[in-house]
Amino acid sequence: MDAQLTPTNTANPRLGADLLLDCLFKGGARICFANPGTTELALVSALARDGRLRCVLSLFEGVCTGAADGYARVSGQVPLTLLHLGPGFANGIANLHNARRAGSRIVNLIGDHATWHLAFDAPLTSDIASLARPVSREVIYLDSPDAITSAVRQAFIATNQAEGGAATLVIPTDVVDAPAPAAAVPAEAIPYRPTPVAQGVIEAAATTLADPGETIVLLGGNALTEAGIRAGAALAAGLGGRLLMEPYPPIVTLGGDLPVVERQAYFPDDVIAQMGNARVVLAGARMPISYFGYEGWPSQLVPDERLVRLAEPGEDAVAALDALVTRLGGTPALAPQTASPVASPEPEATLTPGSVVEELLVQLPQDAIISLEGSTLGGPWLRNAHRARRHRVMTNTGGAIGQGLPCAVGAALARPEACVVSLQSDGSAQYTLQSLWTMAREGLKVTVIVAANHRYAILQTELARAAAPLDNAVIANLTRLDKPRVDWVALAQGYGVEAVCATTNAELAAALRHGLTLDGPLLIQAELP
Amino acid sequence: MDAQLTPTNTANPRLGADLLLDCLFKGGARICFANPGTTELALVSALARDGRLRCVLSLFEGVCTGAADGYARVSGQVPLTLLHLGPGFANGIANLHNARRAGSRIVNLIGDHATWHLAFDAPLTSDIASLARPVSREVIYLDSPDAITSAVRQAFIATNQAEGGAATLVIPTDVVDAPAPAAAVPAEAIPYRPTPVAQGVIEAAATTLADPGETIVLLGGNALTEAGIRAGAALAAGLGGRLLMEPYPPIVTLGGDLPVVERQAYFPDDVIAQMGNARVVLAGARMPISYFGYEGWPSQLVPDERLVRLAEPGEDAVAALDALVTRLGGTPALAPQTASPVASPEPEATLTPGSVVEELLVQLPQDAIISLEGSTLGGPWLRNAHRARRHRVMTNTGGAIGQGLPCAVGAALARPEACVVSLQSDGSAQYTLQSLWTMAREGLKVTVIVAANHRYAILQTELARAAAPLDNAVIANLTRLDKPRVDWVALAQGYGVEAVCATTNAELAAALRHGLTLDGPLLIQAELP
Repeated sequence: MDAQLTPTNTANPRLGADLLLDCLFKGGARICFANPGTTELALVSALARDGRLRCVLSLFEGVCTGAADGYARVSGQVPLTLLHLGPGFANGIANLHNARRAGSRIVNLIGDHATWHLAFDAPLTSDIASLARPVSREVIYLDSPDAITSAVRQAFIATNQAEGGAATLVIPTDVVDAPAPAAAVPAEAIPYRPTPVAQGVIEAAATTLADPGETIVLLGGNALTEAGIRAGAALAAGLGGRLLMEPYPPIVTLGGDLPVVERQAYFPDDVIAQMGNARVVLAGARMPISYFGYEGWPSQLVPDERLVRLAEPGEDAVAALDALVTRLGGTPALAPQTASPVASPEPEATLTPGSVVEELLVQLPQDAIISLEGSTLGGPWLRNAHRARRHRVMTNTGGAIGQGLPCAVGAALARPEACVVSLQSDGSAQYTLQSLWTMAREGLKVTVIVAANHRYAILQTELARAAAPLDNAVIANLTRLDKPRVDWVALAQGYGVEAVCATTNAELAAALRHGLTLDGPLLIQAELP
Repeated sequence: MDAQLTPTNTANPRLGADLLLDCLFKGGARICFANPGTTELALVSALARDGRLRCVLSLFEGVCTGAADGYARVSGQVPLTLLHLGPGFANGIANLHNARRAGSRIVNLIGDHATWHLAFDAPLTSDIASLARPVSREVIYLDSPDAITSAVRQAFIATNQAEGGAATLVIPTDVVDAPAPAAAVPAEAIPYRPTPVAQGVIEAAATTLADPGETIVLLGGNALTEAGIRAGAALAAGLGGRLLMEPYPPIVTLGGDLPVVERQAYFPDDVIAQMGNARVVLAGARMPISYFGYEGWPSQLVPDERLVRLAEPGEDAVAALDALVTRLGGTPALAPQTASPVASPEPEATLTPGSVVEELLVQLPQDAIISLEGSTLGGPWLRNAHRARRHRVMTNTGGAIGQGLPCAVGAALARPEACVVSLQSDGSAQYTLQSLWTMAREGLKVTVIVAANHRYAILQTELARAAAPLDNAVIANLTRLDKPRVDWVALAQGYGVEAVCATTNAELAAALRHGLTLDGPLLIQAELP
């Protein structure tokens, strides 16, 4: 320990901040995504004394929370965020909303004014709990040093609720600046385990499915893993049915020799057509609903009587699927999935979303991780992912845009040996583009492909469906991003990230080859129509 | 009206969205800072039909809310923001926190799911009210078309409470998609007026101040205008006292022939020394408190018995000062302030914060508006602003960083004829750098000077005061931004903003001359030690 870092209270050298970090470390935390301010400096000094937690600085809080989300999804471990009072936390809410929908286990640390200073309503005072509650399983105010061990334990327990989630600790400066109670003993880590599905539920599903009928097995939760996909495919094959996954999986394993998984559609009319008259077995997935409410279309897209509720998102869908397959007569002989040959698209042709995806299918290495945001590349990728080598895909679970780049940061930190590819729409990339700096700073192996179509394509699609005139000046002004066009190469270079613009398939192929072998980040601006 | 834009309900062509906009326009709104999503598209179509509100698109919600704040401060009018559900709104909270501290009158429009879709907990569903309450005087849920006129009226009334603030309207899609009630009549605008100070308060202050004693007149609220500063100076002169202003004024008029106003210090020890044993007349200002709570220092920096509470922030401090001056014997003959001559710093010398300020003192044109964020340039500017031509300065009122650039956007839209200068620290500039795109898109006359010292200087100052070792690896990692150094010229160019790097006083002087005459934005990266 650096001599200058020794706490000044020599009678009891351990401060509240030291105990807090010790509890967090013993509870399983190994990394802290930080954007601290003055109220977090006692924790910064304690992080320096402790030295066991990796600290990753970002220039904006949305990067911290999105990176924590990506780290949690890929590793299954509990990362920390360190954020500055209500306003600093607020900048991280959008990606915590996505993390909540993903069931990502995260502990947020928010520094707050000293307990005795709160009443004076200083400029940075705000109602932190009101801000934090919508994205936290629990918000815990640390009101004394004696509460530190129990509060941290409570936070970790909260992250294990249902399918998992975030807990938020609000930490007044005086509490962590005070001496730690001498007798405090940090609790051990509590591993997350999905809740077992009751045997009766499996029996009921088996009874229902014994009747003949069209069947869809809809995967979510832990059934998005290799084991879950194989079990789901076995069930679907045994019933002569189809295998689908929820539309926005937190992280799903695809490609290689895994069975093909069809993605649930987006618009309600498409989902209704896709589901037909099938019974839908919910295996860790939520029931199909409309993403938004559209006049004339229902919210619930499969009626109750056609839903077979096998496993909720927080339940062990894999074990339930296995048990159900056994109950229905065992695993059928499945023909192994053989990938169709993949070839690079015509080199001299200009890029299209489809050709970007084709080239990536060719080049994506085994065990890569894709962070996917936006439908321009996301849609075609998930329709074709089974043709790629085995990989994992993270998607935007909560619809709060600005998730893709920071999730890629977190993934790369969780799996430094993997190639991480960020398939990113240009509109959503803007919300957390500061992620690029952290990629450069940490030397992360991330290849970012920005789909540069210079518009909010999803809004244009929605407006077109509503028969609104896209060329009207006001509508164009609010949906087109071409005045001026953003130069993503310049932005990336501004953050110290190597970057290149690609307009043809050959240029993209060359850039991708470079990115996937580079020991650090590369941004490819894929100019698209 | 564009034929395609006609609402589809031909029996009553006016939809809820049309009525809503009509009410907002009649209530005084003229501009809408927007980052819409699917749930706001009915409003986007209505904005297109209506055509009276200027729509300004930003790439990130924090730009919308910060720009609305700047617009409100400069114009005194009520701008709108248009934001997408809870997560989109969340990205705007930090700057709404500052707006709250500034008393900026804003109406936020947040699109929400259709009322009948909420129960299905779709991915973007969240507790919007819980997020909005900490930064809103009122959060109003628009539950039916019949409520539109009263809800808008209620929102405008809420913005007029005390020193002013924001009101937030949560707007379900089905409510604004439904036909508007035929009989609905929008309400007229309700101008904001500060509350008059009771005569008894003025009498009591006069009685107290009739006793001899050292006096400080501390300006805030509407006393930060020319009239307030002259009245405050008259009072101070009559009492042989000093004239100060609160440390983070929302907008203050300085320079030219105006009396010199000293700024309240930041650290509690400095404030205590600055205040000495003086009586402190609070003229629209909050009482001096410590910005953060520091062990061993009080929160309240002037004891109650030395406070003379003349006017609260929402009260008419100007009229109270005038009345008090009259009551104490009339305006003394004040020697007119004569600016000391200002000269450019040594051309070949490398830049310092002081030399940047000196050059700006030379060049700043009459009636310019400065958006000031960060202490690197903010401190020296406010110590020297009286030496410049008459101008106005906006500061970061709430401590939520990322205010400076968007506030400059709002100021430039409110006063297109004025030169706007954004004096901006590099750390805080990162939180809303997407502002640069809006500056380019709207052709705003903003000269941004980024103080590029590549560190969180304020945190280093705080850590040094706490005797923490700045060179420790963890501490350095969380406070230094030099690995890699951000290239602000590249970032600006990426957004279509002309940019230049200055390392010497001559380079800065040339860049500033260019920026102040350019019909559009310029970013100057001022490389500082």
